[in-house]
Amino acid sequence: MKMKPVEILLLLLCLNVAVFGVIGNPPTCPADIDSKCGDSGEWEGEFFPGIPKIKYEGPTSKNPLAFKWYNADEEILGKKMKDWLRFSVAFWHTFRGTGGDPFGAPTKNWPWEDGTNSVAMAKRRMRANFEFINKLGVDRWCFHDRDIAPDGKTIEESNSNLDEVVALAKELQGTKIRPLWGTAQLFVHPRYMHGGATSPELHVYAYAAAQVKKAMEVTHYLGGENYVFWGGREGYQSLLNTDMGRELDHMGRFLQGAVAYKKKIGFNGTLLIEPKPQEPTKHQYDWDAATTANFLRKYGLIGEFKLNIECNHATLSGHSCHHDLETARLDGLLGNIDANTGDPQTGWDTDQFLTDIGEATLVMLSVVRNGGLAPGGFNFDAKLRRESTDVEDLFIAHILGMDTLARGLRNVAKIIEDGSLAELVRKRYQSFDTEIGAQIEAGKADFEFLEKKAIEWGEPKVPSAKQELAEMIFQSAL
Amino acid sequence: MKMKPVEILLLLLCLNVAVFGVIGNPPTCPADIDSKCGDSGEWEGEFFPGIPKIKYEGPTSKNPLAFKWYNADEEILGKKMKDWLRFSVAFWHTFRGTGGDPFGAPTKNWPWEDGTNSVAMAKRRMRANFEFINKLGVDRWCFHDRDIAPDGKTIEESNSNLDEVVALAKELQGTKIRPLWGTAQLFVHPRYMHGGATSPELHVYAYAAAQVKKAMEVTHYLGGENYVFWGGREGYQSLLNTDMGRELDHMGRFLQGAVAYKKKIGFNGTLLIEPKPQEPTKHQYDWDAATTANFLRKYGLIGEFKLNIECNHATLSGHSCHHDLETARLDGLLGNIDANTGDPQTGWDTDQFLTDIGEATLVMLSVVRNGGLAPGGFNFDAKLRRESTDVEDLFIAHILGMDTLARGLRNVAKIIEDGSLAELVRKRYQSFDTEIGAQIEAGKADFEFLEKKAIEWGEPKVPSAKQELAEMIFQSAL
Amino acid sequence: MKMKPVEILLLLLCLNVAVFGVIGNPPTCPADIDSKCGDSGEWEGEFFPGIPKIKYEGPTSKNPLAFKWYNADEEILGKKMKDWLRFSVAFWHTFRGTGGDPFGAPTKNWPWEDGTNSVAMAKRRMRANFEFINKLGVDRWCFHDRDIAPDGKTIEESNSNLDEVVALAKELQGTKIRPLWGTAQLFVHPRYMHGGATSPELHVYAYAAAQVKKAMEVTHYLGGENYVFWGGREGYQSLLNTDMGRELDHMGRFLQGAVAYKKKIGFNGTLLIEPKPQEPTKHQYDWDAATTANFLRKYGLIGEFKLNIECNHATLSGHSCHHDLETARLDGLLGNIDANTGDPQTGWDTDQFLTDIGEATLVMLSVVRNGGLAPGGFNFDAKLRRESTDVEDLFIAHILGMDTLARGLRNVAKIIEDGSLAELVRKRYQSFDTEIGAQIEAGKADFEFLEKKAIEWGEPKVPSAKQELAEMIFQSAL
Amino acid sequence: MKMKPVEILLLLLCLNVAVFGVIGNPPTCPADIDSKCGDSGEWEGEFFPGIPKIKYEGPTSKNPLAFKWYNADEEILGKKMKDWLRFSVAFWHTFRGTGGDPFGAPTKNWPWEDGTNSVAMAKRRMRANFEFINKLGVDRWCFHDRDIAPDGKTIEESNSNLDEVVALAKELQGTKIRPLWGTAQLFVHPRYMHGGATSPELHVYAYAAAQVKKAMEVTHYLGGENYVFWGGREGYQSLLNTDMGRELDHMGRFLQGAVAYKKKIGFNGTLLIEPKPQEPTKHQYDWDAATTANFLRKYGLIGEFKLNIECNHATLSGHSCHHDLETARLDGLLGNIDANTGDPQTGWDTDQFLTDIGEATLVMLSVVRNGGLAPGGFNFDAKLRRESTDVEDLFIAHILGMDTLARGLRNVAKIIEDGSLAELVRKRYQSFDTEIGAQIEAGKADFEFLEKKAIEWGEPKVPSAKQELAEMIFQSAL
Repeated sequence: MKMKPVEILLLLLCLNVAVFGVIGNPPTCPADIDSKCGDSGEWEGEFFPGIPKIKYEGPTSKNPLAFKWYNADEEILGKKMKDWLRFSVAFWHTFRGTGGDPFGAPTKNWPWEDGTNSVAMAKRRMRANFEFINKLGVDRWCFHDRDIAPDGKTIEESNSNLDEVVALAKELQGTKIRPLWGTAQLFVHPRYMHGGATSPELHVYAYAAAQVKKAMEVTHYLGGENYVFWGGREGYQSLLNTDMGRELDHMGRFLQGAVAYKKKIGFNGTLLIEPKPQEPTKHQYDWDAATTANFLRKYGLIGEFKLNIECNHATLSGHSCHHDLETARLDGLLGNIDANTGDPQTGWDTDQFLTDIGEATLVMLSVVRNGGLAPGGFNFDAKLRRESTDVEDLFIAHILGMDTLARGLRNVAKIIEDGSLAELVRKRYQSFDTEIGAQIEAGKADFEFLEKKAIEWGEPKVPSAKQELAEMIFQSAL
Repeated sequence: MKMKPVEILLLLLCLNVAVFGVIGNPPTCPADIDSKCGDSGEWEGEFFPGIPKIKYEGPTSKNPLAFKWYNADEEILGKKMKDWLRFSVAFWHTFRGTGGDPFGAPTKNWPWEDGTNSVAMAKRRMRANFEFINKLGVDRWCFHDRDIAPDGKTIEESNSNLDEVVALAKELQGTKIRPLWGTAQLFVHPRYMHGGATSPELHVYAYAAAQVKKAMEVTHYLGGENYVFWGGREGYQSLLNTDMGRELDHMGRFLQGAVAYKKKIGFNGTLLIEPKPQEPTKHQYDWDAATTANFLRKYGLIGEFKLNIECNHATLSGHSCHHDLETARLDGLLGNIDANTGDPQTGWDTDQFLTDIGEATLVMLSVVRNGGLAPGGFNFDAKLRRESTDVEDLFIAHILGMDTLARGLRNVAKIIEDGSLAELVRKRYQSFDTEIGAQIEAGKADFEFLEKKAIEWGEPKVPSAKQELAEMIFQSAL
Repeated sequence: MKMKPVEILLLLLCLNVAVFGVIGNPPTCPADIDSKCGDSGEWEGEFFPGIPKIKYEGPTSKNPLAFKWYNADEEILGKKMKDWLRFSVAFWHTFRGTGGDPFGAPTKNWPWEDGTNSVAMAKRRMRANFEFINKLGVDRWCFHDRDIAPDGKTIEESNSNLDEVVALAKELQGTKIRPLWGTAQLFVHPRYMHGGATSPELHVYAYAAAQVKKAMEVTHYLGGENYVFWGGREGYQSLLNTDMGRELDHMGRFLQGAVAYKKKIGFNGTLLIEPKPQEPTKHQYDWDAATTANFLRKYGLIGEFKLNIECNHATLSGHSCHHDLETARLDGLLGNIDANTGDPQTGWDTDQFLTDIGEATLVMLSVVRNGGLAPGGFNFDAKLRRESTDVEDLFIAHILGMDTLARGLRNVAKIIEDGSLAELVRKRYQSFDTEIGAQIEAGKADFEFLEKKAIEWGEPKVPSAKQELAEMIFQSAL
Repeated sequence: MKMKPVEILLLLLCLNVAVFGVIGNPPTCPADIDSKCGDSGEWEGEFFPGIPKIKYEGPTSKNPLAFKWYNADEEILGKKMKDWLRFSVAFWHTFRGTGGDPFGAPTKNWPWEDGTNSVAMAKRRMRANFEFINKLGVDRWCFHDRDIAPDGKTIEESNSNLDEVVALAKELQGTKIRPLWGTAQLFVHPRYMHGGATSPELHVYAYAAAQVKKAMEVTHYLGGENYVFWGGREGYQSLLNTDMGRELDHMGRFLQGAVAYKKKIGFNGTLLIEPKPQEPTKHQYDWDAATTANFLRKYGLIGEFKLNIECNHATLSGHSCHHDLETARLDGLLGNIDANTGDPQTGWDTDQFLTDIGEATLVMLSVVRNGGLAPGGFNFDAKLRRESTDVEDLFIAHILGMDTLARGLRNVAKIIEDGSLAELVRKRYQSFDTEIGAQIEAGKADFEFLEKKAIEWGEPKVPSAKQELAEMIFQSAL
């Protein structure tokens, strides 16, 4: 039995959507939600009627729907908080997250959903998105192509669906809101089961190229500031049936093609790669920051891409989030952060909102050292827990995530103003702030010279690393 | 918007089923598969037409559709291989596995599926199941209630659906085939999102009890040899919002209720608990064999249950599979094995077919020491990789899994016949095979006596543990 | 070549001690530290001359040698901080930690050490210990027998060494200071390489019993409040050469012997077992709280022991520290806490001082729910990093660890006073605070009754788990 | 108190050596082992008197002191087994491994050891090494400078000690035996506690350069085929007190210096870096193959170094050993293998001898694809378990490790001769063996062309990955 395109369409909808009503020809405003629809069939009034515009009320507030630490226009370390943080809402988690997991059906039952994956539904969802963004008070959003508009039977139909939704998004963006980044979702459809750019099937490679091409165009059209590659299934399940060398070469060619196309269409945003070590594959090629940097160097792409570091991906690869941020930063590659966190005892990507104040402070330390992230920012690649099913939970979670990073930023300001942590580090390395130190750092001290000096100097004195003192200073800023 | 029961029904189907055709009123034999359907609308002929009855051809065979090591009636260590191994096919993985994962849509496209979750489809699938079992040459199968028959709008309707499918299963079982075990699936439906027996909602607790009651009846009716509890969502995502003590007490009461009901209906099969450390929750209450044994002791259930040890669960909890098998065995609790394996570098349950010969040999060592598993056996709680999409892959995977355990059993026979490993162990402990050793082991040697002896004996001689020699002996049997 | 006892003695010293001076007949006050020794050969003056008595200066203090959060006599939640926290200094880490690791030699160079493991050195070290304790302002200490006094050629000599040092310790304790607990160190000496109570060698089993007997006597003599069993090598490296069942039975007998001896000598302190999953062995028998509880139940020891939970051990076993504390608490077994932390990315026991405020708050939540830990307390089973080599680092680390837990306690007070977290949890379970809920909890609701109710009630309503809100409330207390 | 050089010397000896006798002026042949010493004070006769030259006896042999699979001169896949495998004995594990671990004193009691770290002892140990190598029948050994000769009070004295021992080694090597590689041990001495090349102390950097310089000279003098850098402590414990960027720059300069010096002295061996993710530090800079490749590219060292992949390090970094070998191979960097294995449930480096046949087959698959490893080879960076204390255990362990890899090689030959696995892989990628495939692989297919094609081709057909079949084929070769 061969699957027909419409079947694939229906099949896809199952992954992300609860099938509430009759499937076939859903009205713009389906029977179930009639009371919220006007004569035009369009949803009327607010999507989040009980939720006010979120305001800053300061640390003593007990109001779950207020910021306690994030005060957008307050200046910290010479910049407004909103300019350090450049928050973005992730469309897929917030508006396409259904609560489904490998062992369970969807749990979310958002009032605006009619159970279809139609273009009309996509447009209603987009309106909800912008109301959410506006109420939350952020200026950016991120999207996957297939999550904002339904797949069609053909590439042309998919593109046309996308165009229709994107036109609405452009209108709703207004003058202030822009995509932090867009991307192509190359992992849900079964055609991508072996990867996109690294699929052993040439037709899939071409299909992936066509999809990325369109997603880049759309991101450009919407004024997106960056474009992201997350290699959803670029990796392997088993080396026994995989030609890893050939797949990596294909991936190199694919990204070279993306660079060429970016230039052709005049897109000036940053191209970003998002490392992840595992899941869904056993081994994702963009394992971590260093692995990805090695790939970029090998394939002549090092000046063309930056990295989008996700905290939960960093920890799954065995590093602290701070480590992978610093690794990216020192290679000149820190471009964006997917702000989330994992569970320290859990071996998969839980994509939780970051709530750890110490962690947030370390993240912001890297950001401040990097002089900020612009044109990148913080994308909330974080989802409500499956069991959190109230509409207000969407706001509570984002407020918590924003406040945590804002609190981290405030802590960094305290650490910098206090100065003692930087001084402790400076002192540790001061023996290199000397003439011979400079020679070594300039590559002018050969082994013979160094041996002579070592003999002359005798047994080195090696002072305490003062790690506990450093931890004490750090903690006192929290 | 409230969800109507039919919506829930449809919603559920999305988790496990590819939606191929028009949804609404699927014919018994839908348009897409017309050619295989007769006038009655029933599927005609074989489901696996190209696949022969699988035969034993011995180790030199290159035929992927033949056994190389499993020879059902061959005697090993005094029993037929089939009596040591008591293989069972897991209905859910083999017939409801769709290839969906958290990042991707279903990939399997089995010819007998019509994209619905109807009773008619359930029955056709059941016929496929028994053809599969018969061709594979095993005598047992395992099932979840909701996977063999569709959920209804009410408990009564669900029960009635189940009864209809179970009646067919009973007929198809014939005289030889029986369920190794049945179970209730208490984790897919959103009502169970906080757990079943440990849900904070009393109504859910009652619903779970009703479902387990029925599943026990059905298992009994089909001649099932055991009944399993896998606490799909009995655990927590966060301790902050959880009353763990109260939840554990509820779980204790629930299992006490199951024991009482088992006795009431005269079901003589073994009740089994299947430990798993994590996933879908951050912490599952039945973490591992020892944790579950502690629970059983605490709640007065120690004589009433045995354990169903799953290798992939054991390794996720930080133990080798062999360790958890031995822990269960030494506590008198080894009742059944879910035969699969994980990926040593992967932090989630991959449910792969076991292919590691050394691992299989250790597993069989525990089984032989246990005198076999009966009335338990080996259930293939293992699934095809998402990217394996040929019908024949279902057979290849099961043949590989069966051959691997058969090879393990043959190796154990070699180890036992050789005797040198057992002798090495015996010698290590021989100082306790003495009069004072016996006193100690009988609890008759107090600290004062032992101190006196220790002073008398002086510095103990402590010989080599000979671990490398033990490994050498073990390897030479592989 | 047979090793002579004196050789063993010297050999042992190498593990823990830097060999500074001439080895053989070290003077009470060796040449190298002459200037600090009076005519008597005894160390004169302070061991920590630059360090004042540590005082509480409040959160704004920048003084590394002051408490910012721990104010011993301040009342929190109805008790003095010191009575909630009952801090103890671990002799072995603080005074026998050398900075040696598997890849490196000792790095600590404490001025009072003369490089020997003599009784004289042991006594000088004990004086340093009590000066440290007094300056830090705690009332408790913990010790291993072989770390406070040198091993002798025979049990009698070892005991006599121990007696001599313990007599001094008793004098130095004065009226206020007592051991939180003592223990026998059964893992350093090669005789214990296969374990103590679980060694396959009967003579080792007896030796271990003799050593524990003496350590219990000495703990009792010093007024110790508890006695701890940490099964340093009670476990296995490989199951291939191990009779796990026999070893566990021996361990059961051994602990039964300890209980009997405790009663015989009238020691009223609590016996504690300290779970640890791995290291030095691949598998330690006391894996985690639940495993140990299962063991205690199986061997009839459940009323006789409590648990000493170590945070770093909990996380190595795959649990959060809070989880294992709650598991112990709910089983009535929470007796003591080894206060430390691990590195979330590191697979071995790093024994770091706890500095994470969120973690400390969760730890204190368990302690407060337990009504405190007395007669147990918090033992700092934490060590300076190898690279921290200043004497003041010992103080800084302890102050940081004490302040972190004190801060945790203050946060718990805020959470309890605020009340909204408890209220959120209470509400989640309120459906059980009903008549039928009470019936279920009393074990009076059988499956038939529950089925009847479930049918009557129809589809359950399942509210949001509000996890993000719970996290928000929790974070706002930090 | 300042440490005197002699104290450091003594201190160091404690890490690796059991202190048996009187320390001070050990005679060449100490009192304890008098009976084995002649008038010259030199050890007479064999070190391993009961051990024959190890011979190949074939798979049916039960003799622990014979090879069952390794037949040095047998040809497999066109080369002698010894030329594929190029085995090397690691001096440090085999002759300096004491059985000490973080919780325990040394356990090995080799008859030739006198408890000192003297030059005389070093020379006797070297004789034992060569007898061992000869009896085992291998042609290579590997060494750390400080493990073959004692540290002196000054660089000059250390160098002079080294020269004396090396002269003997050269003589004992004869015409056939050569070092596979040498290295400088920059991690045991406290001066290296913050690293060598990455120490914040300039004097330590110089000291490290002097030590590496000498070790390179010595390796060259002995005819070593490679020189290895294992960055024992090149990494960090905490980022709070670390300037990672500056440290990495220093490491780059250091390795550039090594390259220059290599050329200067005319050493033509390969320089190798050995990746390791963690331990002793929380984060080692040479984390894994990809991280190290990125470093080499960044610092202009990519043509100058290859990698020494250690299986246990690979798995600790989250990869399979096969993955890291393939990663190195595909980057042209596979230079040598440290043949060992870890425990899949253990989070630290256990350095066990490889015994897993499947793993060994995968390792050999990479080696065969690489055309062998020469001038690299297989170094047994593996140690006896602490509890294995018989001299014969040293032989048993090496025989087991050699046989396992030999068995892997034989399996690879079967896989290659069978051909079906390679064919399965070839077929998966055959859509790229076309004109358009070639265009893509040559970088000549831009996104617009690919989009045109994708539209033209329609929905791609995506066949099964046949992973289970691949596993079946693989297993049948074992």
